[in-house]
Amino acid sequence: MRPVEEHAATVAGLVAATGSETVRLADARDRILAADLSSPLALPPFANSAMDGYAVRAADLHGFPVTLPVPEDVPAGRVDGPPLAPGTAHRIMTGAPLPEGADAVVQVEWTDGGLPGATVTVEKAVDAGQNVRGAGEDVTAGELVLPAGTVLGPAQIGLAAAVGAAELVVHRRPRVLVLSTGSELVAPGEPLRHGQIHESNGPMLAAAVDDAGGEARLLRFVPDDVAEFLSTLDAALEQPTDLVLTSGGVSAGAYEVVKDAFAPRGVAFVKVAMQPGMPQGAGCYEHAGHSVPVVTLPGNPVSSLVSFEVFVRPVLRAAGGHPHPDRPRVRARVSESLRSPAGRRQLRRGRLDAVTGTVSPVGAAGSHLLAALAHADCLFVVGEDVTEVAAGTEVDVWLLDPVR
Amino acid sequence: MRPVEEHAATVAGLVAATGSETVRLADARDRILAADLSSPLALPPFANSAMDGYAVRAADLHGFPVTLPVPEDVPAGRVDGPPLAPGTAHRIMTGAPLPEGADAVVQVEWTDGGLPGATVTVEKAVDAGQNVRGAGEDVTAGELVLPAGTVLGPAQIGLAAAVGAAELVVHRRPRVLVLSTGSELVAPGEPLRHGQIHESNGPMLAAAVDDAGGEARLLRFVPDDVAEFLSTLDAALEQPTDLVLTSGGVSAGAYEVVKDAFAPRGVAFVKVAMQPGMPQGAGCYEHAGHSVPVVTLPGNPVSSLVSFEVFVRPVLRAAGGHPHPDRPRVRARVSESLRSPAGRRQLRRGRLDAVTGTVSPVGAAGSHLLAALAHADCLFVVGEDVTEVAAGTEVDVWLLDPVR
Repeated sequence: MRPVEEHAATVAGLVAATGSETVRLADARDRILAADLSSPLALPPFANSAMDGYAVRAADLHGFPVTLPVPEDVPAGRVDGPPLAPGTAHRIMTGAPLPEGADAVVQVEWTDGGLPGATVTVEKAVDAGQNVRGAGEDVTAGELVLPAGTVLGPAQIGLAAAVGAAELVVHRRPRVLVLSTGSELVAPGEPLRHGQIHESNGPMLAAAVDDAGGEARLLRFVPDDVAEFLSTLDAALEQPTDLVLTSGGVSAGAYEVVKDAFAPRGVAFVKVAMQPGMPQGAGCYEHAGHSVPVVTLPGNPVSSLVSFEVFVRPVLRAAGGHPHPDRPRVRARVSESLRSPAGRRQLRRGRLDAVTGTVSPVGAAGSHLLAALAHADCLFVVGEDVTEVAAGTEVDVWLLDPVR
Repeated sequence: MRPVEEHAATVAGLVAATGSETVRLADARDRILAADLSSPLALPPFANSAMDGYAVRAADLHGFPVTLPVPEDVPAGRVDGPPLAPGTAHRIMTGAPLPEGADAVVQVEWTDGGLPGATVTVEKAVDAGQNVRGAGEDVTAGELVLPAGTVLGPAQIGLAAAVGAAELVVHRRPRVLVLSTGSELVAPGEPLRHGQIHESNGPMLAAAVDDAGGEARLLRFVPDDVAEFLSTLDAALEQPTDLVLTSGGVSAGAYEVVKDAFAPRGVAFVKVAMQPGMPQGAGCYEHAGHSVPVVTLPGNPVSSLVSFEVFVRPVLRAAGGHPHPDRPRVRARVSESLRSPAGRRQLRRGRLDAVTGTVSPVGAAGSHLLAALAHADCLFVVGEDVTEVAAGTEVDVWLLDPVR
């Protein structure tokens, strides 16, 4: 059987980095910067008031209370910049540019609130620089503010806007064509006959692709005749596609359309030393002169999603420029003793108690327990060389989204 | 000054739970279930084969090798259910329904792979039940599979599909109208004159709303004349709105359009004992016979986003049905000594080293350091009654998205 790392490396080698595209700031949330963003300007761009009050020369304030004429009013956004003559005070609002000649701001609370055109009486002294935000205190002109690889959340989008970026260069999301096959499958909402089940891998894997930063396109109930399968696939590949992801049709049985279609066309089908998720496939399919990466996952939903976590998610995130392709990993002690098959890496579904550092298995090792997977908040790993794990043994834990 | 908790309670009291709506499974990712989802069927719905192989009666396998006729082929999806006569074997594929009369499956690897219509020779015994997935092993009919409040990720969507749900009842996302005002503001991409800055709060807060599970509608550069402000607002409120969120125009200065427009119309403007984020407002604005909640945040971008974290994010998440409205919180020791104003709760931007349990401040306490906020991965809290924090003191830490 193929070691897990070898198959992971094979899949990683198939999917190239996606390149970049330019998006508007309003569409940038959760995207990943593809180029360093430097600021063309200082932040603040000009010295400005941190308070509502009066712009003064600190040296003019002595012999309190001191009364000064207020020749001008400087609201935020005033652009004509009236200079301050010695012995005077301009009324100034928070964020308004500090007048030339002023070196401090007295907050309105320390004054009588005198109006522009009249006078203001000041009660207390201020130091030079007090209540002034200096130009460039936050960011200097030319400074690298957001390096390539930054994932853009609200604060990063705010900073990009503040330095004047109306658009951002981000990694293009990997485009993934998700196919599901299987003649036993019926759409959710439709009645089942004996022997039929609802198709769940399509929507599940499409959600997993989107969750990994990709852009899923879903094609369900692809016919399981090889010629029809291939013509459906070729039609779908007329749209640009970075990866074809299938589920089902890859085990040892007869009637395995994915294997029958792809095995003679560039995709290698292998047994990987893993439980669940042994039957895997990876390769390139030729379409219209292009080589399109293909990864085939097993059809059982739990095997399918666990295989996606192991082989596909980190590769999609890396291709899309994510700085942390892997799930966060911690060590924890298992709450009970476990068995695992010799020579296969087991990925168990679990729930982590972070306070005690204990991970409890959710459901048995059986690969078909989808309800257990939906109640897990982590996966944990039992190594290939281990067949029995005593309670209290430390294992590697992969954190799924903990605050879902 | 108003205590932080009191203002938080005021804001929480304004925004009602949003109610529910029905979405297709394909649109359900990251939505939150508003009703318990029980399964109308068992999973698996019928006993089925866990292997590719031969459905047998375990008792028929003795005197190895044993050769049995193979009257039928049962691929996955075969719905006519041919029963198994004693002393025979049906070829069966993974997931196919176990024939009536069979009680076990012999994997193909333990046989000569005989074809349907001929015979199969079996090398080894199996126990009754071996390689069979019993009906209802995963989920029993009527079982609650996903409780209300579940956040729908890939595994949950897969489970919902498997139990036949084509649509899900989820909490409606809170609709938030984001307004930004300020005559000093210029759109990113446009040149600045002295005294002007780029508008950053609008896209930042819109992203923060979306990030909190809301649906932001952004209205920038709202005029700062009161009558024009109100007519712009009223026009925008013709669309259903759960919350109006403004930034700017609320401090002690003159020319504060948000305060001038809302203070006589149901919104209370207060000083909250917090740094940054002292000037806050909250209340209800009457529009066309409806009472629309309004929260006014300060205009400085850092104050604005920190205030959003403290007052708005948990309320939006709670209104949208999220089971964990608050940021995950941990305790950590500060890496250096800090000062904080008496009587105000300070929210510092920080970076957490989870391995050593240490939080380091990013940037100074000054509220205008947007670059520092964009490089923080947490906020940490210095209490109202504390003015000096020694290095090594434990503080409360709010985790922002750690793997961005």
